[in-house]
Amino acid sequence: MNPLYIIKIGGNVIDNPIQLVQFLKDFAGLSGAKILIHGGGKIATQTAAKIGVQTQMVNGRRITDAAMLDVVTMVYGGLVNKNIVAQLQANQVNAIGMTGADANAIKAVKRPVKDVDFGFVGDLLPDAVNANIIKTLLEAGLVPVFNALTHDGNGQLFNTNADTIASALALGLSSLYETKLIYCFEKNGVMRDINDDNSVIQEINPSYFEELKADGIIADGMLPKLQNAFDAIQNGVKEVYIGHAAKLAALQKESIFGTRLTK
Amino acid sequence: MNPLYIIKIGGNVIDNPIQLVQFLKDFAGLSGAKILIHGGGKIATQTAAKIGVQTQMVNGRRITDAAMLDVVTMVYGGLVNKNIVAQLQANQVNAIGMTGADANAIKAVKRPVKDVDFGFVGDLLPDAVNANIIKTLLEAGLVPVFNALTHDGNGQLFNTNADTIASALALGLSSLYETKLIYCFEKNGVMRDINDDNSVIQEINPSYFEELKADGIIADGMLPKLQNAFDAIQNGVKEVYIGHAAKLAALQKESIFGTRLTK
Repeated sequence: MNPLYIIKIGGNVIDNPIQLVQFLKDFAGLSGAKILIHGGGKIATQTAAKIGVQTQMVNGRRITDAAMLDVVTMVYGGLVNKNIVAQLQANQVNAIGMTGADANAIKAVKRPVKDVDFGFVGDLLPDAVNANIIKTLLEAGLVPVFNALTHDGNGQLFNTNADTIASALALGLSSLYETKLIYCFEKNGVMRDINDDNSVIQEINPSYFEELKADGIIADGMLPKLQNAFDAIQNGVKEVYIGHAAKLAALQKESIFGTRLTK
Repeated sequence: MNPLYIIKIGGNVIDNPIQLVQFLKDFAGLSGAKILIHGGGKIATQTAAKIGVQTQMVNGRRITDAAMLDVVTMVYGGLVNKNIVAQLQANQVNAIGMTGADANAIKAVKRPVKDVDFGFVGDLLPDAVNANIIKTLLEAGLVPVFNALTHDGNGQLFNTNADTIASALALGLSSLYETKLIYCFEKNGVMRDINDDNSVIQEINPSYFEELKADGIIADGMLPKLQNAFDAIQNGVKEVYIGHAAKLAALQKESIFGTRLTK
């Protein structure tokens, strides 16, 4: 099987035009089949504020009501996605921007209401990814650029966590490609001490992950990211890395890139 | 050569959710390869107003400054395009939403500054359309849904008239397909008397077009639309129709649909 890089770029890089330009150059420099996934950073929140859409939070978690769904559809699907695509084209990458609705690539179901109704938030089922159509695009020399939008197949768009989309794509394509899932963000990797940039843990396996969780070293936003990643590895994804967006070029140079997750 | 329908949907239909739902159902009902093109109707102007971006006009024509380009990128590329794609998916059409930047499908150049600088408005050169990549998508069973955005290949997005994009697509694909260009809007066709819905002119050839122009029967927004259409016919497009969005289903039923333009 051919290798396929599936690279998720974090919100902080999206928010910084200079870092984004450099990242997209490095992404362009990766040879072989590849897919990029992005969210929207702070631009969605800022745009919502400008339009007068209030961000509703319940128990510290954001609710996607109809007005907020329109905002993220504009920002993720339009403003951020199309500018990334145009910049990749300038770097000779034949990018094609996509939501999960486009080419019916990623289907989701509305998150079930238990204590909280999260609104138009889509959860991914195991068969969410339409691997064959994505393969067709890749074989045409295209580089899909996904964002945090999915659909239910009945006309409803959803907001879905971009980290989750990245791992679902890596998983869904793992029967057709040797998928390598890379999370790029503003830190050097998973760190033993959040305040020490040099404390990157180079490799984590599932039992070490449990240990780090128990010690409280892995917490907050890193927890679901790693949980997704280990699920992906357990189910067929070849490699997962978590590292600094500015160091992406190291990936194909046999130098060290962030934290490597292993089986 | 296989037939290919290239259908432009007017802004008034985009602005009316009920009409849009019906139109997309009718579009779904057309058999064979097809492409949809849309602008953004009033939603872009309304969104600009909400965000506090003022619409600049010079000599009655809109200027696309950087802030307005962001608005149309959000509205055309995101909100309108992705909702149309999701609705088409619900109608079993495997739609894929695209700007000209996506898959490098349509390249433009910034409109040269003469008396007025229109800002980020892109004009199309004769070789603007990348027909091969669009053919690849069509052959994969996909239905491209284009909007009014193009790019220069160097990272700059542009606002480009959606009617012009439709005729450029019809023209650019005419060496690979028997292209049929259809403009759908809120009128029954080109009318002899704008106040009489029953005064549709069933057929117009180039010399009759000159006559209608001289008589002032064709004027305003209809003029560039028809000029584009006749240019397209002169250069290889098989058929051009202009008619009511609600009557699209008539196209494949050998019944009369709007005004037919001929060589």
